[in-house]
Amino acid sequence: MSVEQQAPSPVLFFETVSAYQRSAAIKAAIELGLFTAIGEGNRTAHDLAARCQASERGMRILCDYLTAAGFLTKENDGYGLTMDSATFLDKKSPAYMGSAVEFLLSPMLMQAFDNLTEAVRQGGTRLPDEGSVAPEHPVWVQFARAMAPMMAMPAQLMSKLIAAAPHSSLKVLDIAAGHGMYGITVAQNNPGAEVVALDWPHVLEVAKENAQKLGVSERYSTIQGSAFDVDFGSGYDLVLLTNFLHHFDTETCVSLLKKVHDALAEGGRAVTVEFVPNEDRITPPPSAMFSLVMLSSTPKGDAYTFREFDEMFKRAGFSRSEFHQLPPSPQQVIISYK
Amino acid sequence: MSVEQQAPSPVLFFETVSAYQRSAAIKAAIELGLFTAIGEGNRTAHDLAARCQASERGMRILCDYLTAAGFLTKENDGYGLTMDSATFLDKKSPAYMGSAVEFLLSPMLMQAFDNLTEAVRQGGTRLPDEGSVAPEHPVWVQFARAMAPMMAMPAQLMSKLIAAAPHSSLKVLDIAAGHGMYGITVAQNNPGAEVVALDWPHVLEVAKENAQKLGVSERYSTIQGSAFDVDFGSGYDLVLLTNFLHHFDTETCVSLLKKVHDALAEGGRAVTVEFVPNEDRITPPPSAMFSLVMLSSTPKGDAYTFREFDEMFKRAGFSRSEFHQLPPSPQQVIISYK
Repeated sequence: MSVEQQAPSPVLFFETVSAYQRSAAIKAAIELGLFTAIGEGNRTAHDLAARCQASERGMRILCDYLTAAGFLTKENDGYGLTMDSATFLDKKSPAYMGSAVEFLLSPMLMQAFDNLTEAVRQGGTRLPDEGSVAPEHPVWVQFARAMAPMMAMPAQLMSKLIAAAPHSSLKVLDIAAGHGMYGITVAQNNPGAEVVALDWPHVLEVAKENAQKLGVSERYSTIQGSAFDVDFGSGYDLVLLTNFLHHFDTETCVSLLKKVHDALAEGGRAVTVEFVPNEDRITPPPSAMFSLVMLSSTPKGDAYTFREFDEMFKRAGFSRSEFHQLPPSPQQVIISYK
Repeated sequence: MSVEQQAPSPVLFFETVSAYQRSAAIKAAIELGLFTAIGEGNRTAHDLAARCQASERGMRILCDYLTAAGFLTKENDGYGLTMDSATFLDKKSPAYMGSAVEFLLSPMLMQAFDNLTEAVRQGGTRLPDEGSVAPEHPVWVQFARAMAPMMAMPAQLMSKLIAAAPHSSLKVLDIAAGHGMYGITVAQNNPGAEVVALDWPHVLEVAKENAQKLGVSERYSTIQGSAFDVDFGSGYDLVLLTNFLHHFDTETCVSLLKKVHDALAEGGRAVTVEFVPNEDRITPPPSAMFSLVMLSSTPKGDAYTFREFDEMFKRAGFSRSEFHQLPPSPQQVIISYK
C-alpha cells in the first residue's frame, strides 16, 4: 500500500483471491520441465511444447503467465530464464530446488488450508491426528526427499556461521534431521565432526542416503525415534534444531531445550534455524506469514520471535542467545550457548 | 525482478509456491467477518476473536498474516483497515465485494487448477463436460449471486463511458447478463433505456431480483437460453458483452458477433468488457494472467488482445472499435460501431 494512494483499488483483493493460481502455475511448470527446456535453448511456445510434450496453446499461456509472475523473460515470441529461474528451477543447475513443490504443495499441507476458517475458530489444525506432528507421519519422508536441494544453500550458510577455530573433534547432534542436509554440511565443512542424526526410522533412510552420496557416512550415525522420548547421549559441541521448534507450543519447546542443554558439553551451542519474525510479527513477510502454516497444520505450533526464543532458551538453562539473518535464505538462525 | 539484482534469490519461488495460502487467508477473513468487525471498532486479537466467534490465537495469526499481505494496518497490538479493505471488504461499505470469493474460489474454478499440468499438455480444461461453458452449469447462478457487488463499480464506469447525448430511448441487449449489473446500471443512468437480459433461466432469476431491487424492473425483460441459439430480436442501440467472449475460440466469437451485428440498429454499438492484455501478452498482469483461468476451465477460451478483438469485430461487419481502460477496475472496454 503506497501512502500516496488517493482512491481505493480492488486490485490487491483480486490478486490475492487469484493467488492460488500462482502456486498451480509454478507446480505445472516444474512438472513439465519447462525451465529446464528453456535452459536447453528452446525459446518459443512451439519448441517448448514439443520438448515438454505439451500443447503449443497451453505452453504459450503458461509461459506468458510465468513471465507476468516474474519467472521468465519474453522478447518477441521467445522466452528466457531470469537469474533466479536459471539458478533454482533448471534441473541442470547444481542449485535446483524444484522438487520442493512435492513437499510444499503436498496434499497434506494444502488440505490444511482447505478449512482455514475453522482452524482460526478453533486455534489449531483441523487435520486428523494432530496434523503434521503425528508420530511417523509419512509426509516427513516426502519432506526429506523433496526438500534436500532447497536446504543445501541455507545449510551452507548456517555451517559457515557456526565455523569456529578448527576443531580436532566436533560432536554434533542433528535433531529431526529430515534430509540430513544441515548435519551433513557441517560434517563436510569440519573434517573432525562426527554427526548423530535423530528422526523417525523411514526418514533416517533418506538422511543416510544423502550422507553416503555426500561422502560423510563414516562419520554419520543415527538415533531412531521421537526427540521427546529417546536418549540423546551427551557431550555434544553442537545440537542442531532446524525447522523443528515451530511445530510446538512454548512449554513443549522449553522441555525439549532442557534436554538439549543436558546433552551439550560445557561451552556447547544449540543452533536453531527457523522462521523468526521481528517483534512486530508482521516483518519480514516470509517469516511472519509462516505462522499461518503452523496454525493450519499443527495443534499449537507458531513462528516465534527472537525475544520468545531467547526466553525459552534462558528457561532451559542457556546463558545467552545470538540472532542472525541468513540471506538470501528467508530464514533466520539463533545460536544459544550453554 | 530488479535489474540491479546481483545474486540469485529463492524468495520469489518460495512466495509463489506458498501463494495459495493468500487465497485461503482472505477467504477465511471474509467468512469470519473480520474486516467488518475491525470496521466496528474491534482492534485487538482478543476483541476480534470474541466478535467473530474465533480463538484469540487463530485471530492473532490471521491478522498478522493479513497485515503482512497488505490488507490490514497494525500499531502496537491493534489492527486497522487499509483504505482498500475499508472500501471493499467491510460489509457495511456500499462497495463491499467480499461475496466474490464464493465464485472466484468456488470448487469448480479451483478444481480446474488441480491438474493444470494436464491442461497445459492438452491445451484446454480437464474438467468434465467442457468445464464452465457446459449448458446451464450451476456455477453461473453462483456467479450471478456472488459477483454482483464486485461488478457494481466497473458497471458504473462502463455506463459512464458509453453515455452519449441524452436519448429519448435506448434499446439495450445484455448478453450472458449474469447478475445483470451492467444492463441494470445502464438503465439506472439512462431513464429512456429498455434492457433485455439474456442468460440461462436460473441465472435470470438473479438478474431480475437485482433489477427489482435497483428500481428498473419496469424497463427490464429477459430472453432465456444460449446466446448462440436464441433469437436476439433487432434494433438495439447497445449490445453488452461483459466477460463472455473470453470463454470461446476466435471462430465462435466471430459467429456470435455477426449475430450481434445483425441485431444492432444502424449506428448501434457493441460494448465488450474483458481482460484485454497488451500486445506483449504479459501486461497488465491481471489481464495477461487471466488467460490461464480460461486454459484451465474452458476448452478453448483465452484473454484476447485488442488487435485480436478488433479483427474479430471487423470480420463480423463492424466498422471500427475503440479501446478504453477502466481504472481502478483491472478490466478493459472495447466499443465497436456498426
